[in-house]
Amino acid sequence: MLIVMRHGASAEEIKRVVSVIEEMGYQARPMPGAQRTAVGLVGNDGRVDASRLEGLPGVEEVIHVSKPYKQVSREWKTESTVVRLPGGVAIGGAEVVVIAGPCSVENERQILEAARQVREAGAVILRGGAWKPRSSPYSFQGLGRPGLKLLAKAREETALLICTEAMDPDGVRWVSEVADIVQIGARNMQNFSLLKAAGRAGKPVLLKRGMAATITELLLSAEYLLAEGNHDVILCERGVRGFDTITRNLFDISAIPVVQKLSHLPIIADPSHGTGLRDKVIPMARAAVAAGADGIMVEVHPNPDAALSDGAQSLFPDQFAQLMREVRVIAEVIGRRIAEPAPVGA
Amino acid sequence: MLIVMRHGASAEEIKRVVSVIEEMGYQARPMPGAQRTAVGLVGNDGRVDASRLEGLPGVEEVIHVSKPYKQVSREWKTESTVVRLPGGVAIGGAEVVVIAGPCSVENERQILEAARQVREAGAVILRGGAWKPRSSPYSFQGLGRPGLKLLAKAREETALLICTEAMDPDGVRWVSEVADIVQIGARNMQNFSLLKAAGRAGKPVLLKRGMAATITELLLSAEYLLAEGNHDVILCERGVRGFDTITRNLFDISAIPVVQKLSHLPIIADPSHGTGLRDKVIPMARAAVAAGADGIMVEVHPNPDAALSDGAQSLFPDQFAQLMREVRVIAEVIGRRIAEPAPVGA
Amino acid sequence: MLIVMRHGASAEEIKRVVSVIEEMGYQARPMPGAQRTAVGLVGNDGRVDASRLEGLPGVEEVIHVSKPYKQVSREWKTESTVVRLPGGVAIGGAEVVVIAGPCSVENERQILEAARQVREAGAVILRGGAWKPRSSPYSFQGLGRPGLKLLAKAREETALLICTEAMDPDGVRWVSEVADIVQIGARNMQNFSLLKAAGRAGKPVLLKRGMAATITELLLSAEYLLAEGNHDVILCERGVRGFDTITRNLFDISAIPVVQKLSHLPIIADPSHGTGLRDKVIPMARAAVAAGADGIMVEVHPNPDAALSDGAQSLFPDQFAQLMREVRVIAEVIGRRIAEPAPVGA
Amino acid sequence: MLIVMRHGASAEEIKRVVSVIEEMGYQARPMPGAQRTAVGLVGNDGRVDASRLEGLPGVEEVIHVSKPYKQVSREWKTESTVVRLPGGVAIGGAEVVVIAGPCSVENERQILEAARQVREAGAVILRGGAWKPRSSPYSFQGLGRPGLKLLAKAREETALLICTEAMDPDGVRWVSEVADIVQIGARNMQNFSLLKAAGRAGKPVLLKRGMAATITELLLSAEYLLAEGNHDVILCERGVRGFDTITRNLFDISAIPVVQKLSHLPIIADPSHGTGLRDKVIPMARAAVAAGADGIMVEVHPNPDAALSDGAQSLFPDQFAQLMREVRVIAEVIGRRIAEPAPVGA
Repeated sequence: MLIVMRHGASAEEIKRVVSVIEEMGYQARPMPGAQRTAVGLVGNDGRVDASRLEGLPGVEEVIHVSKPYKQVSREWKTESTVVRLPGGVAIGGAEVVVIAGPCSVENERQILEAARQVREAGAVILRGGAWKPRSSPYSFQGLGRPGLKLLAKAREETALLICTEAMDPDGVRWVSEVADIVQIGARNMQNFSLLKAAGRAGKPVLLKRGMAATITELLLSAEYLLAEGNHDVILCERGVRGFDTITRNLFDISAIPVVQKLSHLPIIADPSHGTGLRDKVIPMARAAVAAGADGIMVEVHPNPDAALSDGAQSLFPDQFAQLMREVRVIAEVIGRRIAEPAPVGA
Repeated sequence: MLIVMRHGASAEEIKRVVSVIEEMGYQARPMPGAQRTAVGLVGNDGRVDASRLEGLPGVEEVIHVSKPYKQVSREWKTESTVVRLPGGVAIGGAEVVVIAGPCSVENERQILEAARQVREAGAVILRGGAWKPRSSPYSFQGLGRPGLKLLAKAREETALLICTEAMDPDGVRWVSEVADIVQIGARNMQNFSLLKAAGRAGKPVLLKRGMAATITELLLSAEYLLAEGNHDVILCERGVRGFDTITRNLFDISAIPVVQKLSHLPIIADPSHGTGLRDKVIPMARAAVAAGADGIMVEVHPNPDAALSDGAQSLFPDQFAQLMREVRVIAEVIGRRIAEPAPVGA
Repeated sequence: MLIVMRHGASAEEIKRVVSVIEEMGYQARPMPGAQRTAVGLVGNDGRVDASRLEGLPGVEEVIHVSKPYKQVSREWKTESTVVRLPGGVAIGGAEVVVIAGPCSVENERQILEAARQVREAGAVILRGGAWKPRSSPYSFQGLGRPGLKLLAKAREETALLICTEAMDPDGVRWVSEVADIVQIGARNMQNFSLLKAAGRAGKPVLLKRGMAATITELLLSAEYLLAEGNHDVILCERGVRGFDTITRNLFDISAIPVVQKLSHLPIIADPSHGTGLRDKVIPMARAAVAAGADGIMVEVHPNPDAALSDGAQSLFPDQFAQLMREVRVIAEVIGRRIAEPAPVGA
Repeated sequence: MLIVMRHGASAEEIKRVVSVIEEMGYQARPMPGAQRTAVGLVGNDGRVDASRLEGLPGVEEVIHVSKPYKQVSREWKTESTVVRLPGGVAIGGAEVVVIAGPCSVENERQILEAARQVREAGAVILRGGAWKPRSSPYSFQGLGRPGLKLLAKAREETALLICTEAMDPDGVRWVSEVADIVQIGARNMQNFSLLKAAGRAGKPVLLKRGMAATITELLLSAEYLLAEGNHDVILCERGVRGFDTITRNLFDISAIPVVQKLSHLPIIADPSHGTGLRDKVIPMARAAVAAGADGIMVEVHPNPDAALSDGAQSLFPDQFAQLMREVRVIAEVIGRRIAEPAPVGA
């Protein structure tokens, strides 16, 4: 950490910064410069509270040199984390994993049909919300616990794994009893009570980037999970808020290589929420794989026009099958391959 | 709702849009135009799911004419809501209410000293977090329930009302037993499970705008509270995420008149989080009152340099007293006045 | 255009909107709705000035149904524009074109070496700035006209085409005498005097998206060029301003399919400025091609560590050669191929 | 400048950074830390090109400690700049200056009527565009040089000073012959050819903040003007691009105190463009004065409903008069006062 003093800060003010740093248990190294003095804080273990220093008289700004996160960083653990799931599926290794399915579980017929269709095209994990965070209290909010049962049934029939969202501590308990991956949605990325609960769930967690979250904040939220002892964390880029409303979100594909450099955790991408428009999902899914994503998460619905939520961004099953054919080749270009579903009953 | 068809959409496609609208129970009115046809959906009660229409073949875009929220809108209720609190304090009427205090409750001495100081200068409500949402799991997370007791003690001694944050359904229960206002923080603005709990808490709720929330989304989150039967809702602008990191947030003062036109709910402003820098808090607090805010929420600490959180944005007590003198005059310019604290023991 | 009235707007107010529309020479169609009345403006030729209507009493908002641009839209011209350049190079057809070279022309040796290297790897157009728009007046501003001569020499030797930026009307004249493509930089996307000059330059124009420009604004700026009679326009996504400073810009790859649907003009992508970091350029270049870009523009420098500008985002020549190998396969996946350079002296 | 090395950077890599710094003519000070080594660059005169260092092997990031601008900073010149205009008007001193008038000059009657009205209410400078930068080539683009003559006539009659925009080097010449202040619009804030021309114009310049410009970039653009020898520069906040389209721009009032701390140049605010909506202009104008702006710039039109541009954000003359009464009191609260117009013929 570097405490930059104002031009013309008094010797007194510099001395005070030094002594506050020392009070906090760190070493201070003043460096007089051409325009101003800066004071280095040495020994930062990632727990220094900058705001104590920012407000001191004569301080211009506090610059963070150390990363604020720890266990999620590549400096803490050099080798990439591979999250191992039942049936030999692994996220973060050589294989690129495809998660697909409808936005929400609507009824038995719909979820079973979707499961069969995405499995046939090559997905290995089924997505589908039992609880749906909706901006409006009057929108369809999901089937709740009966939805979880339908997901379990779909898994039984197709051998697909299940990934579904939990919205509160109770939900984490229910979801982790049934699902293979507990999803934390973008709107809850900084719901720290929920993160703590998910950190203790005993199941891998898929953590979606918040709509206005920096990469640093995403990694700090993941740190909450690791700090509770859960190391099976998968990050997910799903679009951030941009100024152009022509797409629902601004799908930040560069987050993929950025995260991969800073952290050992796998990162996948969700082009369906990332763009919000069906005809943009396919090119963006290809782009995410080309950029090196460890997986993609795609909304597919047997009958998008009749979907209870997010119909406009759901692919038709045959579009999804075409997409799978394309990403298989792209994955190979960069030395990876698309994970294939296990045979049913295997 | 207006469904805009693509240029060259077929008669077939237009017909399908019309029939889907009718299936949904509304009336459809096609309007052929110079460049393209648009189909009006008449009778929208705020529950139409646009995504079913967005994805239909031939549809270019769906334009919302009706507001997606209902009970929070000025069209639902013309007169401004006045949230009435104990001791005759009211938010949303002629008086401008000042909420002040430290970022977090640290210990008995600190909170009592802060309470006395802000009361003396003219605040009527004491703020102070017992639970603190922090980006990093390693930062100070608040005292928890013992912090609530200290707030209660401060109220006893100073007759200030108490406003403090709840972060999960359990927290809502504990906070609503003690506080006069339950605060929902910016990071939880779309934590819908929390909103539902707060909607049933039986206490007024202060809802902060999320970091990337549009005004429409803020009002939809408030709608969750009203939909649960809680009509005592106070909105709060506290800065949104901007592209310039020179301030912590971009304090959107224009949100004040924008909300006041669309909704009957009161709106206050928090210049401390809005800017994140002590020397910007004072001019921004004045600006918020000049713009017509129904109140301001300001961080004040007896000794900001030693604060456990947000020290750099907390005012010194004498700065706060000076601010109070200034906003008293500004409130009068626009025909309002600053609420004065009740005498102790009144 | 739809003029949405306030809830409770008077019959008088609605009548006035109707009569203003008729004064402007269009037809008005009032549509009474459940919550409010809307008035459709029929016959919009793209020249209606909405601000006259927005300010009328009783008007809530004005919604644009027609696009504000005309000649650039796919509705005006259905088939994709193919910009034909000397030597058989074409942008916007089946081939994906690679433009590469240093940020700025520094000296003869540097630009010739760069030209040979990028040609060898497979680029068909050489980039390199003779004038550089720099945030600071104290940064290297380019060689000016002598730089143009060096570019011409590089073309002579390598048969690469030349693309370089003009910053003012004089510059447009000089650049269009020498270059094959006149580039308008992001900072000048709404420099309308410059656009008018470029529209009359008689050379194809590469128009970069401004840092905070919506797609609609990008297309409107292109409309300035077409309105002056220049139909050889290539658009370029190069990253927009985001809230996360971890990358220099937020590279909006979804702009590629969005533009391709709305406009017949070709669109290429610049991952070098789009990310600002060398190790992100390669994955993002692959992603852009996978998303369907009509070309990519990449900074390559013979010796990036010694570059006078943008060294940190320039590829080493061998990195560029590896990238070319990868994008050749990706282009094929989506039914395209990378344009190959003509033999020298052909 | 601080060059932060990657965790585990080799001694070799650190040595190379040191030697590149020394080659550039500065001193290098390596500081080994707990997590990583950082190398301080001492003697930075504001001309160091960081990109040469950013790309070196082992470098994690380059952190700027010195400001990139020089002459515009408060460290260069401590006392606030007061821009002195004819007739004793001064911007940046104790008085708060009001600039008002229509968006564009439409005809003699309109501009004279507007001038009389705003003068009567208390404005001292008349605004009005002779050239208008418009997103669409089909919108009204201003009267051009005849518009300048009408402005001169309005000055003759009312003794108001004139502020009007120039869009290219030719325009700067024409405008500076007639106007008292040459305005550079937001879209041209980084049109560096225009800035250089304006820097040599011999007239004070009003520089508007670009739509996505950071404060640092605004100050760097101002530095272009000072570097050409023009020290009479007035900055202007006019709203930046935000994610919520409910207002045209996001009016960043906090830019006022931020700029005033970093720079000695005066800063005014334009709430008309800042919000784009008439009923938001008045509260935002009050807020800007309360925040300490050195002036405000407000669109006023004798008949907004018939305005050729920006009618929806122009105030009616009586609204403007009311606003003037309010800001007079607010200015006094913070120890300033509104400048009053000189008597005609004085």
